[in-house]
Amino acid sequence: MATQFDPASGTRDFLAGDVEKRERVFDVIRSVFTRYGFEPLQTPAFERLDVLLGKYGDEGDKLVFKILRRGEHEASGEADLALRYDHTVPLARVAAAYGSRLPSPYKRYALGPVWRAERPGKDRYREFVQCDLDTLGSSSPLADAEVLCAHHDAVAALGIGEFGVLLNSRRVLAGLLEAFGVPADLGAGVLITLDKLDKLRPEAVVAELEERGLAAQTAAELVTAMTAPDAESRIRDALKRSDEGSAGLDQVDQVLSLVAPQLPPGRIAFTPRLVRGLSYYTGPIWELSAHGVAGSMGGGGRYDHLIEQLGGPDLPATGTSLGIDRILSLLPDGGDQRPRRLDVAVTVMAEELAGRSFGLAAAARAAGLRASVYLGSSGKLGRQLKWASDQGARWCLIYGGAEDEAGTVTVRDMDSGEQTSVPVGELGAYLARAAD
Amino acid sequence: MATQFDPASGTRDFLAGDVEKRERVFDVIRSVFTRYGFEPLQTPAFERLDVLLGKYGDEGDKLVFKILRRGEHEASGEADLALRYDHTVPLARVAAAYGSRLPSPYKRYALGPVWRAERPGKDRYREFVQCDLDTLGSSSPLADAEVLCAHHDAVAALGIGEFGVLLNSRRVLAGLLEAFGVPADLGAGVLITLDKLDKLRPEAVVAELEERGLAAQTAAELVTAMTAPDAESRIRDALKRSDEGSAGLDQVDQVLSLVAPQLPPGRIAFTPRLVRGLSYYTGPIWELSAHGVAGSMGGGGRYDHLIEQLGGPDLPATGTSLGIDRILSLLPDGGDQRPRRLDVAVTVMAEELAGRSFGLAAAARAAGLRASVYLGSSGKLGRQLKWASDQGARWCLIYGGAEDEAGTVTVRDMDSGEQTSVPVGELGAYLARAAD
Repeated sequence: MATQFDPASGTRDFLAGDVEKRERVFDVIRSVFTRYGFEPLQTPAFERLDVLLGKYGDEGDKLVFKILRRGEHEASGEADLALRYDHTVPLARVAAAYGSRLPSPYKRYALGPVWRAERPGKDRYREFVQCDLDTLGSSSPLADAEVLCAHHDAVAALGIGEFGVLLNSRRVLAGLLEAFGVPADLGAGVLITLDKLDKLRPEAVVAELEERGLAAQTAAELVTAMTAPDAESRIRDALKRSDEGSAGLDQVDQVLSLVAPQLPPGRIAFTPRLVRGLSYYTGPIWELSAHGVAGSMGGGGRYDHLIEQLGGPDLPATGTSLGIDRILSLLPDGGDQRPRRLDVAVTVMAEELAGRSFGLAAAARAAGLRASVYLGSSGKLGRQLKWASDQGARWCLIYGGAEDEAGTVTVRDMDSGEQTSVPVGELGAYLARAAD
Repeated sequence: MATQFDPASGTRDFLAGDVEKRERVFDVIRSVFTRYGFEPLQTPAFERLDVLLGKYGDEGDKLVFKILRRGEHEASGEADLALRYDHTVPLARVAAAYGSRLPSPYKRYALGPVWRAERPGKDRYREFVQCDLDTLGSSSPLADAEVLCAHHDAVAALGIGEFGVLLNSRRVLAGLLEAFGVPADLGAGVLITLDKLDKLRPEAVVAELEERGLAAQTAAELVTAMTAPDAESRIRDALKRSDEGSAGLDQVDQVLSLVAPQLPPGRIAFTPRLVRGLSYYTGPIWELSAHGVAGSMGGGGRYDHLIEQLGGPDLPATGTSLGIDRILSLLPDGGDQRPRRLDVAVTVMAEELAGRSFGLAAAARAAGLRASVYLGSSGKLGRQLKWASDQGARWCLIYGGAEDEAGTVTVRDMDSGEQTSVPVGELGAYLARAAD
């Protein structure tokens, strides 16, 4: 069996290069969030089953990994714990548990794995990192603008340049349905179909709307209004005909007026067709998407009653979630560079000199460099230089009988092959200078 | 129910202060390990059940959290996955899976949570961070010395000064049993009892040895040899009488000769009574313990056949594991300092000026500072200054009608209460200077 040593289906091992790339990305994100005054929160990997179940709908509940009871109860086949499915339900629990001991508003980020029993596939994992930024306890559009800008700045700080921010409001969508006379019972389905305007041709969207039972003329008017060259002004005019639509437009314009001046020109646009699947949003919604790349780099919106529905206190809330795997896939891989595990590789030419070599490595570390002695069994210099090269070392220190007698160490530059004899006592200073 | 919002039994929520303290500690540890040329490895939170079961003995197997099969199989009450119990079994799987694609020797660290269904208690958790440092593929005592020194340096770099390193070898223990004529079938039990010499009085240890069936005279001789003022030379003399003992002594002396010169004087000592519970060790073993504090800050040793027993390739191996929770408990808490969530708090004095305030916060962030606008609903300056103070802000920016007219912003020093009027365009430079 070739697969018996693979990680469990839908999960991944991250070796050094991957860990380092991911941690660099996480560090950038954390530092942007911190600059906005958000603080970290870490909750356990598992929660009591009753905390999680019933929060994600029937479909979601099926995707929760459940943990078997232990000891004598194991035979019952029952579960009492479950792996975290997202960071939002734990946030609701924490808001309930700590209440006024949390700052108000509570601005927190969570960055860590979540687990979902999805069918694994390309870019679909059972263990993946979710990164959420949320503000609980503020109804201000400034709070929406802040999480949105922080999300934007994190993506920009990672060096992704070609992307846009789509902005809409749930109330704009409700107003649209009203303005175009879409029957209430068709509303949700119509929105799901309109959301496909970035993938399907307009005719296909019209056809799907008709399949959903929408009158042919309404379907055509709706799609025309949203795809015409002057779509935005058409939609704005239509929205002004309804109270809900006007209120939604005000929300969008408030957030736009706060956010747009902080972003590069043209980066953010009112996008009436943006729906975002989740029904819990109550106000502005947004999404970040890279130009010419399917899928999004995450998004979010205002969700004023969700925390209470999830068992927490009734707090207004707004938040954004970064699509970490998508963002990682857009970053360069660093190519197939030779790994640089060490700055300084130290040979061990004879057993009785091992202690001296061990001390030379310590001196290099004290000079702030990554250093290690040769741990293999060969006494041959060629083999040890090969090892030094495999480590990507910049220098190899050679310390044999001649050096021991002279009180020096031979420093070999691994790129040029040039060798310099350095008094042992000056090694640290020599390397620190050379590394500058 | 007061506890319904608590995290699951044996797990913890980490709010901002805790996360920040822990991450600072982890950063120090990672940076020391990196300087020694160790690279990170991250494996999934869960493994296939067959990868984990049968590896930890019957008692260990009972402590593994098992994950219920999903979908139609859920009703079977069977498990097919389980949460990681340690970092060693995943390391064995990775060594088998990636083989020659890993560097040789493979020097890796793992720092992340593991899960054990222990009965929760003081300092005993069901989710806790384990931090392991291991070298696979080297038989050299240099490899033992390297992991031991890296462990030592990490603890020292955290600012823990008063601690010692206890060093022994499994072969010393075998030699001791031989030298004192302990019957083979009593050996394991005798070692467990001798390990208590740091907690119990010698008489109590002698009594326990006799209860285990050891002859009274042998028990007395053994304990006397290990507790006498000249214990080390007595033990050394006894060990030299057996082949196994001599070999063990050589191991200890080799590691001592490599490590001791790198450590402060008196930091490391040959400690014949050190046993370390785990039976898989095959060579040198060690433990770090803080003076005057029960329990250890971790330890390790050489374990040459374990990786194969765990399903991996047959590689020599040595490693050390840091007692993270113990180490954290020895570090100062930072006292009850006022949290400093922001450097710059920005007031919002009127709705129509919100955009300007939002821009001022962005300017402060661009100057490298943590900044946020007020997200509450009060227009009163006093309330907003109270909020700025609660955030621990160093400066509060006040931007009202007067400032808007003058093109300035009022910068209030939150410690002195002093207020300075700064032209809006010069705010970033002003703050950057003030923060220096």
